[in-house]
Amino acid sequence: MATSRLRDVAARAGVSIRTVSNVVNGYAPVSDETRSRVEKAVAELDYRPNLLARNLKQGRTGMLALVVPELDVPYFSELARAVVTTARHHGYTVVIDQTDGEPDRERELITRGASAALFDGVILSPLALSPADLADRDASAPLVLLGERIADSRYDHVAIDNVTAAREATGHLLGLGRTRVAAVGDQPYETGETAQLRTRGYRQAHADHGREVDESLIVGTRRFHHADGARAMAALLDHPDGPPDAVFCYNDLLALGALRTLLSRGVRVPDDIAVAGFDDIEAGRYHTPTLTTVSPDKATIARLAVDRLIARLGDRPDEPPAELWAPHRLVPRESTTGPALRPTDVAARPGQAGH
Amino acid sequence: MATSRLRDVAARAGVSIRTVSNVVNGYAPVSDETRSRVEKAVAELDYRPNLLARNLKQGRTGMLALVVPELDVPYFSELARAVVTTARHHGYTVVIDQTDGEPDRERELITRGASAALFDGVILSPLALSPADLADRDASAPLVLLGERIADSRYDHVAIDNVTAAREATGHLLGLGRTRVAAVGDQPYETGETAQLRTRGYRQAHADHGREVDESLIVGTRRFHHADGARAMAALLDHPDGPPDAVFCYNDLLALGALRTLLSRGVRVPDDIAVAGFDDIEAGRYHTPTLTTVSPDKATIARLAVDRLIARLGDRPDEPPAELWAPHRLVPRESTTGPALRPTDVAARPGQAGH
Repeated sequence: MATSRLRDVAARAGVSIRTVSNVVNGYAPVSDETRSRVEKAVAELDYRPNLLARNLKQGRTGMLALVVPELDVPYFSELARAVVTTARHHGYTVVIDQTDGEPDRERELITRGASAALFDGVILSPLALSPADLADRDASAPLVLLGERIADSRYDHVAIDNVTAAREATGHLLGLGRTRVAAVGDQPYETGETAQLRTRGYRQAHADHGREVDESLIVGTRRFHHADGARAMAALLDHPDGPPDAVFCYNDLLALGALRTLLSRGVRVPDDIAVAGFDDIEAGRYHTPTLTTVSPDKATIARLAVDRLIARLGDRPDEPPAELWAPHRLVPRESTTGPALRPTDVAARPGQAGH
Repeated sequence: MATSRLRDVAARAGVSIRTVSNVVNGYAPVSDETRSRVEKAVAELDYRPNLLARNLKQGRTGMLALVVPELDVPYFSELARAVVTTARHHGYTVVIDQTDGEPDRERELITRGASAALFDGVILSPLALSPADLADRDASAPLVLLGERIADSRYDHVAIDNVTAAREATGHLLGLGRTRVAAVGDQPYETGETAQLRTRGYRQAHADHGREVDESLIVGTRRFHHADGARAMAALLDHPDGPPDAVFCYNDLLALGALRTLLSRGVRVPDDIAVAGFDDIEAGRYHTPTLTTVSPDKATIARLAVDRLIARLGDRPDEPPAELWAPHRLVPRESTTGPALRPTDVAARPGQAGH
């Protein structure tokens, strides 16, 4: 422990603990002779107060915090990799914490919490925080928000254009001639601003194609996990008007869950039902069928967020908060367009459950 | 920044910075009157030196570090969730760093690096470190190693019995009557001790069943990602003696990559080739076919590792290093045993490439 070791150094150097502290932290001048005695003792005892002590002096830790709701949601772990890699180029270590979307935990990390002193800057992907929580914040470490903008925010934020992205994905399905396109992942406004934006894009695509939205085809889910998608798809298969012929899921895990329901029941994808997701996680690229998805440019999101923190920690601490947009693109794959080559179709195979 | 704020407090209280530091850190006695002046200024300025300062005094940060090679490998993100949850019960925050298996980075984190002072304890899942790296370590924060034991280690470590687990998975495939069982994921000893243990189990299972190992069916991979599994499977399909009839992959990502190769080529799983993985990641439970796998008890691994750190930070700092074993179990699913109900078989479908 640092306490006893500080004491050890003081004892060996024959000075007070305060004098050791003065040498280490530079709080007060110390004679050259005393300084060299302390430094010798520090070296002999291999005492390393470096970071904590130096940080107290400089107010820096060399660490950035990335705070995400769930690390085992691949979008966040892939984003985390991009942030870690980018920050390393700037000489920063990124440590990651997951909040499970608990408001208390998110609040703690961005307001009066521990982190303000431990991290030079914070990148937060909030799930549960309200604008009021942010308004209360009074910590010196700069903060960059990822994802949807919290209104009247005093902070930088980085996002993609969710409305346009969802509009493109839904438009892709409608453009394939699908007439009953379901949406899976809607959430109430309070906790699901991202979902709300995607539903808005889903509606706009219908308007673009001159189609009415069938409200009963918009399915809410509590979370964005495999299980939620599997359940929602099962419900849609039992829809009183018959199943949809396409499904736009608000993330890839929902889509992979939906695919499980479809494939285990022998529904042909995309022949009977086309499926699109959102996030472009690696698992979707290796699934059969491969998953059509919206690919947010995670590397750019990471770069914009880290650059913003670095600028605020450096020569531009007082710039006004910026809204930064990262690009996205629609990646059509087998789950909507079918395989380029389908070996199983070589053998005659009877059609199933046409619609 | 902490420096200027410390100065602000000193100015407002009309005392020296050193005196503020003495009050905050308890280095030297301060009169009641001075203390109350400083405390008033601290309150008025909302100065919060708490963690860094208190830590310097107590030698504690309340943070544990979890250091893993790759967060976007689901085994590690799922393990991270378990560690974060367990540590929170003990009042610890876990921050996570990924090393990408870079030896320098792993070394930095466990030896003279920053972390020794910033984290009360470290849980490390080493990929690149050698026993010599650990022998050099001289940091005060306790360290728990996850995964394979590095010989002559002075540290606690938590692992599962990889040899037995691999033996059970391979035995499961041989027990299904498969005669050409391939292994995907072998790695050279220096960097792949885990892989070596799994290959040993693979060999033992063959011995159990009185079968010779066909060395050409043991396929090495550089990493344990989807792409490696897909490539290895493609090579096995072109095996001069014909494809294997079963594949044991050393993790689930390899298995899901192998499945992509098989399914995209119309190979029937498990009819033509059965596939088993290792890790029991969520994606395998939702894949079609669902993935047979070895499920390491991640919750127990997390609990054993965190408990060990807590004990060393508490009343048992000097216990001898322990080898702790977490249980595992084989989870047979559709990729080896076939679906319980196969709706696609209801329609007549010609057999393919029997063996």
